[in-house]
Amino acid sequence: MRIQATTEAGGNRTLDVMTAIRGRIAGRALAPGDRLPSIRRFAASMGVSPSTVVEAYDRLAAEGLIRPQRGSGFYVSNAATPPLKLAEAETPKARAVDPFWVSRQSLDADEAVLKPGCGWLPADWMPDEALRRAVRSLARGGGDLLTYYGSTRGSPALRRLLLGRLGEDGIEAGPGHLMLTSTGTQALDLVCRFLLRPGDTVLVDDPCYFNFQALLKAHQARIVGVPYSVHGPDIAAFEAVLAAERPRLYITNSAIHNPTGATLAPQVAHRLLNAAAENDTIIVEDDIFADFEPEPSTRLAALDGLSRVIRIGSFSKTLSASARCGYIAARPDWIEGLVDLQIATNFGGPSPVSSEILAHMLAGGGYRKHMEELRRRLVRARRETADRLHRLGIEPVLLPRGGFNLWCRLPEGMDSTPVAQAAVAEGVVLAPGNVFSVSQGAAGFMRFNVAHMIEPRVYSVLEAAMKRAS
Amino acid sequence: MRIQATTEAGGNRTLDVMTAIRGRIAGRALAPGDRLPSIRRFAASMGVSPSTVVEAYDRLAAEGLIRPQRGSGFYVSNAATPPLKLAEAETPKARAVDPFWVSRQSLDADEAVLKPGCGWLPADWMPDEALRRAVRSLARGGGDLLTYYGSTRGSPALRRLLLGRLGEDGIEAGPGHLMLTSTGTQALDLVCRFLLRPGDTVLVDDPCYFNFQALLKAHQARIVGVPYSVHGPDIAAFEAVLAAERPRLYITNSAIHNPTGATLAPQVAHRLLNAAAENDTIIVEDDIFADFEPEPSTRLAALDGLSRVIRIGSFSKTLSASARCGYIAARPDWIEGLVDLQIATNFGGPSPVSSEILAHMLAGGGYRKHMEELRRRLVRARRETADRLHRLGIEPVLLPRGGFNLWCRLPEGMDSTPVAQAAVAEGVVLAPGNVFSVSQGAAGFMRFNVAHMIEPRVYSVLEAAMKRAS
Repeated sequence: MRIQATTEAGGNRTLDVMTAIRGRIAGRALAPGDRLPSIRRFAASMGVSPSTVVEAYDRLAAEGLIRPQRGSGFYVSNAATPPLKLAEAETPKARAVDPFWVSRQSLDADEAVLKPGCGWLPADWMPDEALRRAVRSLARGGGDLLTYYGSTRGSPALRRLLLGRLGEDGIEAGPGHLMLTSTGTQALDLVCRFLLRPGDTVLVDDPCYFNFQALLKAHQARIVGVPYSVHGPDIAAFEAVLAAERPRLYITNSAIHNPTGATLAPQVAHRLLNAAAENDTIIVEDDIFADFEPEPSTRLAALDGLSRVIRIGSFSKTLSASARCGYIAARPDWIEGLVDLQIATNFGGPSPVSSEILAHMLAGGGYRKHMEELRRRLVRARRETADRLHRLGIEPVLLPRGGFNLWCRLPEGMDSTPVAQAAVAEGVVLAPGNVFSVSQGAAGFMRFNVAHMIEPRVYSVLEAAMKRAS
Repeated sequence: MRIQATTEAGGNRTLDVMTAIRGRIAGRALAPGDRLPSIRRFAASMGVSPSTVVEAYDRLAAEGLIRPQRGSGFYVSNAATPPLKLAEAETPKARAVDPFWVSRQSLDADEAVLKPGCGWLPADWMPDEALRRAVRSLARGGGDLLTYYGSTRGSPALRRLLLGRLGEDGIEAGPGHLMLTSTGTQALDLVCRFLLRPGDTVLVDDPCYFNFQALLKAHQARIVGVPYSVHGPDIAAFEAVLAAERPRLYITNSAIHNPTGATLAPQVAHRLLNAAAENDTIIVEDDIFADFEPEPSTRLAALDGLSRVIRIGSFSKTLSASARCGYIAARPDWIEGLVDLQIATNFGGPSPVSSEILAHMLAGGGYRKHMEELRRRLVRARRETADRLHRLGIEPVLLPRGGFNLWCRLPEGMDSTPVAQAAVAEGVVLAPGNVFSVSQGAAGFMRFNVAHMIEPRVYSVLEAAMKRAS
């Protein structure tokens, strides 16, 4: 290594040169394949000797950041563009409690692990018998259902059913307004790919569903938050942030908000749409919990009529997270472009196997009864869970009209992140508030899935974890 | 309209100002939300009167490209960032014959439409009975298979089977090297999202699978092509383009190339890998037609051992395009990052319903027999189709060792695009050469799917279309 011969000052100058080059590469002033400034010229511009630059370039080449080309100089190597890593830590255990933490812990957990932090219902709450019947009918079904890609907009049968449901919501929509996707998340992902460029500003609620943040990070969007109250976003703050930041998109849930369980009030919805129109912000309304409502609430797509609002949804929370299928309802010209994007990135629409299972279940008439039963069980589970949490000094911010989430405040001064870390070591996955919060202002909160709060062990581990974290 | 009062020269100056602003917005020197230069300042810099700038700004505002903010000036509106439209035409009929043309025509076609241009086997060639048995066993299966998301890397059973197959190919791989995805196309899409930034250069074969181009367009990649010969890419051209363009990625099929049917020769594979190592290019080897080979050929992932090569694949060509499931085999650190990206953009792995159907079919032992039968049928179909095409003056460039495609040369001077356009009007979807070619140098070629070339009507429509196009 050449550095042995340099003085302290010389060593620093070499590092300065290296830092300058690294900075240009990181800022993309120098892109992969670009030729670096010649040694002589860079030495002059940085006020150092050419040998200092030679040493710096050699060390960067040894790291693989740049490569020498004989007789031609140095070039930024392809490896200089790092892959799009969304999370930092090496091993699952060492991972920070970030928007991926709850997903990874919940999705990959052992069956013995209790998951009150997860965002879906346990298997025994789902219509397993009806699903099996639907699958058997699939096995008997005719044609090329089991072998063929399916049309680019997805199963016509399922689309007809969904158009009917949109009509019931007061949304006039024809076939040109609707497409199916492989999942609800992929629906949102397609919309983001269609409308966003890296660096664009996107507004989300604070708190919001943690995977919105993970997804927007994958799109290299600039994320800003608006505080979410019991009636929807804080409307004065919403109007202000729209005027100040001019976000390209605002992503939210109507009906039952995730994680708070709140319902959008009509007046807030109306002002929200006007502010969006004034600032040319497109709204994505994620409908995924809407069927948990006891009766329909004000919905943005209904007020707006699919001109500025895009509605997305799926049945993974109410029917099956296995036979997955999502949908997008939007302006027909956007749907055209989104279908092309889906062909390019997924070749074809959603799995016909999944869509037909869902169409079978929705057409059967059993879906209404199933949802009534689910809502009944959940009313009771929310009340019982709230009582049991109360004994631990944990209070829900509000009692939701529907759904399975309780957004709760921990006792004064307690931080939910160390509580969650302590609990996961004992086989219980919790959802600490800050994974939902762009501003990281929800340390004192936690989201509980009441359908996973039946086991007494959840409460004993929670209590112990709270003591450890105090 | 103010323009009536301006002279010809004045009118041109207004347009100059408008063009200058449009150019800055298109080049992102001015981004949505940015404030435009003040009227006085811009007038001075362009050497025009302030009233000319006022008129230009007003006209741009009327178009919606910019918006006035009272007391504050003009701002670039959000609508100025156009959505990511991958295709231009308004109506399906008016669409250009581009990489989306064949997809759209084939995927959405009526059952009566004949599709020798499509890239999959007809339903009656697929293992329908075995699929029904697999679906019935799914209906009987235990646990939460029908309701639960499934782990983030996908079905353990299917992954074990795939690891075994990788081992048979001579690729040492452990669980850390493999993940499942919702489809083969989505596998490639994830890799692109992980490794590419807009503007990065990607190398593809010329000709190549048309959806590679559509996908890369969605990623805003700069696409370059390397001529593909009967033994793989023209290796001298490959080495030259790698040194000249330093592409980040090279995407190809080994085994049976799409569309040519060629097989990579060992010497070409070896030199290709060395050139890639020298220029730091990552290789994606799409394995989707590998099981059509009569015996295994040289494979890049086997020579390289998953350090620079990423292997992707799926079973949509051999088992089911309905129960779709893809996979990625790569370095473990890349797989970690890709799993996170899949969680963010699709929340969870592929549909457990689909993966279990495939695992059931692969484990049953019937897959080997099914592929032997398929290969036998295809040998015959390729020979018969080549004979019948010969009578029309159409000759395959080579007779492939396996697979269902014949890449053929039309009679001298004939352009396959108008032939395809004439044929689609008669209910036959063909695949004209230029949808496969980055350089648009394949006008005299066409890809025929021999399994869809049984009907005599295909040949009569083809013959008539060729006459019309002469």
